[in-house]
Amino acid sequence: MIMEDGARKIMQQSDQLAVFSSMQGGLTRAYLTPEHAQAHQQLGSWMEQAELETWQDSVGNQWGRKVSANPTLATLIIGSHSDTVANAGKYDGNLGVLLGIEALSALAEVALPFHVDVVAFADEEGTRFNTTLIGSSSVAGCFQPEWLNVKDKNNLTMAEALVNFGLPANLAGSDARKPQDTLAYLEVHIEQGPVLEEQDLAVGVVTGIAGAKRYQLTLSGMAGHAGTVPIDMRQDALCGAAEMILAIEIFAQQHDVVATVGKCDVSPGAVNVIPGEVLFTLDIRSLRQATLESCSVALLKQLEVIAQRRNLQMQSQQLYQAQAVPCAEKLQTLWGSVVEKKTGQAAFYLASGAGHDAMVMTQITDIGMLFVRCEKGISHHPREQVLQDDVGIALDCLIGMINKMAGEYTN
Amino acid sequence: MIMEDGARKIMQQSDQLAVFSSMQGGLTRAYLTPEHAQAHQQLGSWMEQAELETWQDSVGNQWGRKVSANPTLATLIIGSHSDTVANAGKYDGNLGVLLGIEALSALAEVALPFHVDVVAFADEEGTRFNTTLIGSSSVAGCFQPEWLNVKDKNNLTMAEALVNFGLPANLAGSDARKPQDTLAYLEVHIEQGPVLEEQDLAVGVVTGIAGAKRYQLTLSGMAGHAGTVPIDMRQDALCGAAEMILAIEIFAQQHDVVATVGKCDVSPGAVNVIPGEVLFTLDIRSLRQATLESCSVALLKQLEVIAQRRNLQMQSQQLYQAQAVPCAEKLQTLWGSVVEKKTGQAAFYLASGAGHDAMVMTQITDIGMLFVRCEKGISHHPREQVLQDDVGIALDCLIGMINKMAGEYTN
Repeated sequence: MIMEDGARKIMQQSDQLAVFSSMQGGLTRAYLTPEHAQAHQQLGSWMEQAELETWQDSVGNQWGRKVSANPTLATLIIGSHSDTVANAGKYDGNLGVLLGIEALSALAEVALPFHVDVVAFADEEGTRFNTTLIGSSSVAGCFQPEWLNVKDKNNLTMAEALVNFGLPANLAGSDARKPQDTLAYLEVHIEQGPVLEEQDLAVGVVTGIAGAKRYQLTLSGMAGHAGTVPIDMRQDALCGAAEMILAIEIFAQQHDVVATVGKCDVSPGAVNVIPGEVLFTLDIRSLRQATLESCSVALLKQLEVIAQRRNLQMQSQQLYQAQAVPCAEKLQTLWGSVVEKKTGQAAFYLASGAGHDAMVMTQITDIGMLFVRCEKGISHHPREQVLQDDVGIALDCLIGMINKMAGEYTN
Repeated sequence: MIMEDGARKIMQQSDQLAVFSSMQGGLTRAYLTPEHAQAHQQLGSWMEQAELETWQDSVGNQWGRKVSANPTLATLIIGSHSDTVANAGKYDGNLGVLLGIEALSALAEVALPFHVDVVAFADEEGTRFNTTLIGSSSVAGCFQPEWLNVKDKNNLTMAEALVNFGLPANLAGSDARKPQDTLAYLEVHIEQGPVLEEQDLAVGVVTGIAGAKRYQLTLSGMAGHAGTVPIDMRQDALCGAAEMILAIEIFAQQHDVVATVGKCDVSPGAVNVIPGEVLFTLDIRSLRQATLESCSVALLKQLEVIAQRRNLQMQSQQLYQAQAVPCAEKLQTLWGSVVEKKTGQAAFYLASGAGHDAMVMTQITDIGMLFVRCEKGISHHPREQVLQDDVGIALDCLIGMINKMAGEYTN
């Protein structure tokens, strides 16, 4: 009953929060905008209703603390992000913040051996500036002062945007948390993938966040007339790319990685001209950093062999990389036992292919994540949807997890 | 020695003709433009120097006639086109016109049993209006009156452009040649492909012009996050397209067709998003119309099977088709014997994958074509190049062919 009420409340709050948007008829909420201020004011008000002590930090994250009368342990942080991509869904990030507030509201009368902080990170998506995870990076002590010079599309620097928001730019990142003061970081997030739905489960325990590497590959062959160059005399860059894209798919099926070719641009790109050049991207991810490293090398070598056999020039350039981050085993075990108790089913464990604030928080503390099923795995889209019943189960699990940690860490 | 002089003259004339261009520093000559008028005035003047009777026809084609004192046979027509694509080479089309004039110049003192006409078709490429082969279509009686309403990019109709050029629009196409008055049509053209260069040959006898079909294919799968959707749960439209592009390549290697995927557009086309939709084109050609028909059906069926196995929606739409046109066997044989005599080598026979004016002239008469080697097969490009020696051999062959026909057709 408490969970049903809590879930209904969170669904309503999700709708209310989605109103703070820069976009007519949709949700877009970027860092250091009026919508950011409005959403955090609303969250702060809900935090106060949950009897939390509230404040805004140096980069505009919104905090609420359930103060422990006599804390014997470092502070437990629960959080996620309140910013969104352009034309976003209502649950990515925001659901985790609302669950944190509601869990602490439900525990208002319960004495805990640690402070519990719930945080709404003001930037995870990087929608406004050319960098992501600003909110959690500041908390984890990874805020880079050069970010202050990064400009948005209106040519405003982040430093100027901070000042306009009412925050002294020179203090940004100055209030990072220390490892010794932090017990752990918990984050509940929508899965943004289809696995839980496929498994018919409301929630799943996250084992870690996959590392990723992104490459841009350029294949150069020889353009030519589609009618006059015999098949066996061609150096068709698109046929080469096609063979590579299939090889990438098969490689991913046979190894512990996911790999995606998301972009493929053909030049000159006319119906009657043999493609002379193709530019395509490769995104490869694995939960194990060593696997990611060895598989990237092996896969690129396979592509090089295809290029040579086809007499094509291949150039590869790494665009991006992120380290694989495991969730703390102890926290996985605790989440698992809570999920089993609350759902009566064996806990299901899955990796996160997408990045999250937890990825940065691992710099200062253990991280533990719980995923909530979302419809068809759709995210970053207005059609993003979660079931109210699943939100109730996630809330039940988060409350259970806080209680469990109170027991575990004091024993 | 005559051939050397003739070839040198044609190379010089090619350079001179390339000056009549709408483009600074490059060659672009479109239908019914001042450049068209200037180039045809120049060609007319060279025709007169070759002692030909000259006139302009109802659609602006330039003619020169070597009048036979006592013609016992219908008229032999030799021709090609004088218009160009944007930023073109100097030899596509124009070389065939210049060879025709120079061959008749060399035969000025020779009495023939037929009139010989050399024609510069004013439009083959379709650079200005949304239709191609206007010049030869008019001569072959295929001029479509609705073309008069087609507009150029400045919103001028072809009818208006004809009037501005000094031609009454209502007469366009009215002076078509009749089959009974036409002996044959000969066209010498650069190959626009790499086969003769690969064979180390100056010229080759064309067996026919390939028929072509063009399709646009749309593959629809399911877009998704590159990190969160496991490989085995994907409906990746690009992986499907890649498998199809490879299947098309293998099919073309195993059958008597050439096939090309020249365009491939991926949606949404982001490095970290699984492609939800791919649009690609298929261009398939064969010298034999029956082969083209059966192979198109068989290949599309193969692609449909791939789409179904991958749970992708496939839609195909035919964009274009052109019938396969064989060169007259008798003319192939005559060209072959001339080439063998003039080069001392066995004649080499090859199909044309590109379209030519001969494709239309087949409506009223037998066609016979000779290809001239061009560097690396490059055409429709400023780097289009031919060897002067090859031009000499082509000239020698064309003169030989006219003489041969005079003998053959009177026996």
